[in-house]
Amino acid sequence: MSVPHLVTALTGPILDLERKILAAQPEIEHWFRNQWQELTPPFYGSVDLRNAGYKLAPVDMNLFPGGFNNLNPEFHPLAVQAAMGALEDLCPSARRLLLIPENHTRNTFYLQNVAALVRILRQSGLAVRLGSLNPDIIEPTTLDLPDGHKLTLEPLERHGDRLTLPGFDPCVVLLNNDLSGGIPPILQNLEQQVLPPLRAGWSTRRKTNHFAAYDHVASEFARLIGIDPWVINPYFDHVDGLDFHQRDGEDRLAASVDAMLARIRRKYAEHGIDHEPFVIVKANAGTYGMGVMSVKSADEVRGLNRKQRNKMSVVKEGLEVHDVIVQEGVPTFEHIDDAVAEPVVYMLDRFVIGGFYRVHTGRGPEENLNAPGMHFAPLAFATPCTTPDCDGAPDSEPNRFYAYGVVARLALLAAAHELEPVAQEVALAV
Amino acid sequence: MSVPHLVTALTGPILDLERKILAAQPEIEHWFRNQWQELTPPFYGSVDLRNAGYKLAPVDMNLFPGGFNNLNPEFHPLAVQAAMGALEDLCPSARRLLLIPENHTRNTFYLQNVAALVRILRQSGLAVRLGSLNPDIIEPTTLDLPDGHKLTLEPLERHGDRLTLPGFDPCVVLLNNDLSGGIPPILQNLEQQVLPPLRAGWSTRRKTNHFAAYDHVASEFARLIGIDPWVINPYFDHVDGLDFHQRDGEDRLAASVDAMLARIRRKYAEHGIDHEPFVIVKANAGTYGMGVMSVKSADEVRGLNRKQRNKMSVVKEGLEVHDVIVQEGVPTFEHIDDAVAEPVVYMLDRFVIGGFYRVHTGRGPEENLNAPGMHFAPLAFATPCTTPDCDGAPDSEPNRFYAYGVVARLALLAAAHELEPVAQEVALAV
Repeated sequence: MSVPHLVTALTGPILDLERKILAAQPEIEHWFRNQWQELTPPFYGSVDLRNAGYKLAPVDMNLFPGGFNNLNPEFHPLAVQAAMGALEDLCPSARRLLLIPENHTRNTFYLQNVAALVRILRQSGLAVRLGSLNPDIIEPTTLDLPDGHKLTLEPLERHGDRLTLPGFDPCVVLLNNDLSGGIPPILQNLEQQVLPPLRAGWSTRRKTNHFAAYDHVASEFARLIGIDPWVINPYFDHVDGLDFHQRDGEDRLAASVDAMLARIRRKYAEHGIDHEPFVIVKANAGTYGMGVMSVKSADEVRGLNRKQRNKMSVVKEGLEVHDVIVQEGVPTFEHIDDAVAEPVVYMLDRFVIGGFYRVHTGRGPEENLNAPGMHFAPLAFATPCTTPDCDGAPDSEPNRFYAYGVVARLALLAAAHELEPVAQEVALAV
Repeated sequence: MSVPHLVTALTGPILDLERKILAAQPEIEHWFRNQWQELTPPFYGSVDLRNAGYKLAPVDMNLFPGGFNNLNPEFHPLAVQAAMGALEDLCPSARRLLLIPENHTRNTFYLQNVAALVRILRQSGLAVRLGSLNPDIIEPTTLDLPDGHKLTLEPLERHGDRLTLPGFDPCVVLLNNDLSGGIPPILQNLEQQVLPPLRAGWSTRRKTNHFAAYDHVASEFARLIGIDPWVINPYFDHVDGLDFHQRDGEDRLAASVDAMLARIRRKYAEHGIDHEPFVIVKANAGTYGMGVMSVKSADEVRGLNRKQRNKMSVVKEGLEVHDVIVQEGVPTFEHIDDAVAEPVVYMLDRFVIGGFYRVHTGRGPEENLNAPGMHFAPLAFATPCTTPDCDGAPDSEPNRFYAYGVVARLALLAAAHELEPVAQEVALAV
């Protein structure tokens, strides 16, 4: 597989951040080692990063990653090795794994992701079968993939507190389904271990909890390497009690956007950044790039027309949005030819196993690239994120990817904090 | 780096073993996971394998591997990831590592190995410096490598119970020196963690202890996948109290060789193998292919001339050999063009991170390929050992390498048993 070299348009300050990350590499890895002594990493995750030149920050963290097929196949052994380690830590006695994918059976991109994931899990030494929550799957159903491989989905069965398939009693259940539609009864109170835990699903998870945990992680890390935490951390705010159809809460949302723009403007002035601030408003629970707006003024959230209100009010599975995260917009300065590019870093256990660029020809540097129906070209990273070259320039490709891997792992740490049983109870009690 | 495809001359039975290994892959990995719950893997190791077609077995296990530079650089990230995991398990709080290499400062092959190892350790997140036991290194000495890189060796210092370099107080000491010459006082009773433990050095380690532990591991594994353990395990015997110069013990050695040849002959008859048995006699402690003989009859060890006696009687550092392992010879059926090839598999922590073929044009399939001054061409494995292709033929390249990785990990398990503090005390008490 030939991977094109990527064009980046980065100057000045980001080199300073990358230089600091490289110079502190032994301290950084030592710090991560100590963090993982206290915390359990999620089984897997992917992080959307934005590299603005003056800022390199995560803007989203997915705990049910769906693009394993987009990774560079040359780094596939890294994923297998990481999965072997994760199994040893999380469920050493497991022999059989039941993978529960999303319900869409016609999205061949997604199905190729499932096939790539199955391959990793099998090579790490598990018997793997696929159980579907899709009510249309009433018998074993074999789907053809574009590369000639096949996937067989089987209807889930429940016997007492165990989830099974005919002739297959799994030791562990791995979700690649984000539970946007809620936690179905068949998954509740299982005696089998479920990875990631059910509370990681979007029926309970909230982006604002994640970024609250990230605030803490980013501050500690910033202190470690001597940087302003803002350089790796987008501001955010939480607005709930919204009803886009009824226009309830519109003023509070506008006020939040206004305040956020003012905060960004102050930081831009402080760092000498000549850029017009913008803000991303997104559903606090959800994925697939639905329920997302990019705005440059509070007026833009006040005067929404019906179409815009409809777009904001529902996410996947038709769920209504009453709760949003108002997040500092981080423009992406990376582009490939004329297309805007956003790196997505994949992790399994506590290891970076690769990543790809989400490239979108039809969108600008301030827009959300993870849009429904988007025609993105995934471009696998040419080098892994684990091999900084201390003799190379700070912005040489392996070093840029090392910095991406570090920031992605900060988001992974935040997810680990977020998923801690106690933290979750506190968060849910709020 | 382009890696040639390797010629193997394998037919019949080995396909049966490989097929069994592939079919049992989930059980095998599950079994390994459980083994590693009980045992601590050595920090690193390399295993010499012999593939005879009818038999695939380890013939030596090195706990101070010296060929990291021969591995395929494409798999370098696997080594970094494995080292990160090992550090987390063995010494999570470590920041600074002192690496103690062998004393030879003019062997550029060896120095390139040290450089490759330093690179892995640094990328895994440690500050690394090199401390030398060589009495000629009395000040920091920078050596040039053929690829333009440099290595700086520094004289070791000891302050109380800590080993140091000027301005460098390491948290952990990693030996890449096999201590053939004994354990120097400067390394004794350190308060720092030493990896691998001092008892792994050839001043105390014995091959017969390793293969006794391997007997146990191989039997359990053979039961797991339903094979005759002999297919993965060479017979061995222990003869001590020898003096090659005085010809003391010659009769006992000849009797051992005779008995070994008879045992092999019986197995060959049982498995229908048409091959003339041979036996390897090697120093029970030591490396570098010194003190090794390949014999087909007991007479060959009885009538040694002065040159042969000299060759057998000393190993590295001029140590006298009084103690040998008499090991079933396993011919290698692998060759590259007209040269004989022997696979060497490298492991870090409990993971296979690559391997290479030791290729020797001047030697036959029954000879020791790890000979002093040998002109071997290292050929890196083209694929890692962790990605079996269940749809591929059992003897396809990734699957052959998977089988190699499995057998190498059996030897690693044996080394873990061998290095357990209690086992060691028992062994030393014998």
